[in-house]
Amino acid sequence: MNYKGYNRETYLEGMKKTLDLRPVIESYMEDIFSQGIENIVLCGIGGTISIMLPIEKFLKKRTKMPVYVENAAELVLGNNKAVGEKSLVVLYSASGTTKETVAAVRYCNEHHIPNIGVSYKKDTPLYDELKYPILGIGEDEYSCDGDYMNLFLIASAFLKKNGDMPDYESFMQALARLPEAMADTKEEADAAMKELAYDIKDETYHMLVGAGNVWGPTYCFAMCYMEEMQWMKTKSIQSPEFFHGTLELLEEDTNIMIFNGEDETRPLTDRVIHFANKISKKVRVIDTKDYVPGKVDEKYRGDFSPAILEAVLGRLTAHLEDATGHSLDIRRYYRVMEY
Amino acid sequence: MNYKGYNRETYLEGMKKTLDLRPVIESYMEDIFSQGIENIVLCGIGGTISIMLPIEKFLKKRTKMPVYVENAAELVLGNNKAVGEKSLVVLYSASGTTKETVAAVRYCNEHHIPNIGVSYKKDTPLYDELKYPILGIGEDEYSCDGDYMNLFLIASAFLKKNGDMPDYESFMQALARLPEAMADTKEEADAAMKELAYDIKDETYHMLVGAGNVWGPTYCFAMCYMEEMQWMKTKSIQSPEFFHGTLELLEEDTNIMIFNGEDETRPLTDRVIHFANKISKKVRVIDTKDYVPGKVDEKYRGDFSPAILEAVLGRLTAHLEDATGHSLDIRRYYRVMEY
Repeated sequence: MNYKGYNRETYLEGMKKTLDLRPVIESYMEDIFSQGIENIVLCGIGGTISIMLPIEKFLKKRTKMPVYVENAAELVLGNNKAVGEKSLVVLYSASGTTKETVAAVRYCNEHHIPNIGVSYKKDTPLYDELKYPILGIGEDEYSCDGDYMNLFLIASAFLKKNGDMPDYESFMQALARLPEAMADTKEEADAAMKELAYDIKDETYHMLVGAGNVWGPTYCFAMCYMEEMQWMKTKSIQSPEFFHGTLELLEEDTNIMIFNGEDETRPLTDRVIHFANKISKKVRVIDTKDYVPGKVDEKYRGDFSPAILEAVLGRLTAHLEDATGHSLDIRRYYRVMEY
Repeated sequence: MNYKGYNRETYLEGMKKTLDLRPVIESYMEDIFSQGIENIVLCGIGGTISIMLPIEKFLKKRTKMPVYVENAAELVLGNNKAVGEKSLVVLYSASGTTKETVAAVRYCNEHHIPNIGVSYKKDTPLYDELKYPILGIGEDEYSCDGDYMNLFLIASAFLKKNGDMPDYESFMQALARLPEAMADTKEEADAAMKELAYDIKDETYHMLVGAGNVWGPTYCFAMCYMEEMQWMKTKSIQSPEFFHGTLELLEEDTNIMIFNGEDETRPLTDRVIHFANKISKKVRVIDTKDYVPGKVDEKYRGDFSPAILEAVLGRLTAHLEDATGHSLDIRRYYRVMEY
């Protein structure tokens, strides 16, 4: 099937090429660990810090090695004493040009801090500076979903090398099946996401709620898609935090979008859904559990929830553009104005 | 001087009693470290996770020991493998009854995880369960500002015991002078905060921006004060993140409140102020640097910024209540409804 912004064939081809990066990443890890590694630092800004958040959960669940998330703009200030020559910093910039991320990799190199990262373009400042560069493959909607593929490859190879992933082979088999499941998810979700886009297009304020490893995509969808690309006002909030403030704003006509995944935090989001339905008539739930039953290895459904959610949100984004008539490509300030 | 919700004398008395907790906390640390500690876990929810965030910065700047921040509702799910018998979990609940925090301390005890924490009331579930309980002293506005006093005592005693704070004595001297400076700050800020409260009272949407160790108070003021207590819509966003999405919403008439502190991240917030002033006519900056010059030890002004900011925001909160005529004590759902 083909939709605006999505073509099944090129999507799966890109994913296939991404999976082929496995031996490169594994050999990078051999080299990295031979230098002695004491912690891992996931570094990004905006969209790229949001994709690091599910990976933080993936790692922390499996390893006792310290895992840090650092904003690229703050890493260069040197205010985390644990970041140093025995750290591995993970960086990401699809364009390879994000100013703060480029500054972060330069900071790492000046301070002899090992770094690995992904850019979708060669001959870019990020790609050129990375100690262990990975060339991502991005096409159409693929680029967003592919981020998780790349990061799962990096994170699982890291865990395996550190002795924290005895199930590495079975995880890799599940990962190899994920692209099909994500493509199927898009196709299953498309009609519902079209309807949702038209339902919410005129709302003037949107609450977005998510927890655990789908918090990253929730935060990102609010800020990078709704705010940046659609100029819609949002408040994104984590499910357990919702009950300590934001809930008081909920009224019968408040548009609240709740994203649920399948990791351990699911009951925290179920609680928000239960409460929200008592108050608002505009509760919109996107639940990864509704998609591709039987097509994702049960053992890893929880880990893969952010990728499945991202696949759904890609369709919502495409339809929002049509529904609002507001192009996803217009910016008034970002990369337009000097500041 | 006296204001609604603030009395200099009782404020300083409470702070004095808080400082007297020093030997208790130091002796707790002796005991805790004798069991072997490998990491520290700052645990809270809502307002109490927000006060942990500046402490995370305070610790990370000074120690290589892993520092984690865990939401109380997630800690009990056991999804951070590094949290265990060699962790020190720090908890906080003024009332001593916050459901998620009480569940978290019980989880710690069941799993033999050392825990220390503050409640402002004895004979409460939190106080009774804590392995190392601290009785906080709360009066009027003191309670919010006092949180930082308690946490600075805990964090610095922890660092000293771990060999990471050679300047412990001079820090303690600076901390002893902080309450006067916070009281003076309130008095210096009062008139301006009254004006600000009346300026913003009718706005229907508020952007709040802050970075580094004032991000915690920024997030908290948006969610716990404006949303929960005043039912005002907010979007709180970290300064470096602002430039990766939220900026696109800024218009000439957007109310944007920017909180600046004096830690290393100050230039990141300066950049937001500079940009916002080009677009919006409603840029409201609260800068800790404007308060109590010479009354805070220069060396620690950056560390104390969240406490100084909190002192200012206490005045803003009190005046907002008058300006909107919306009592700070009304809730429609929180602790009113079952959910």
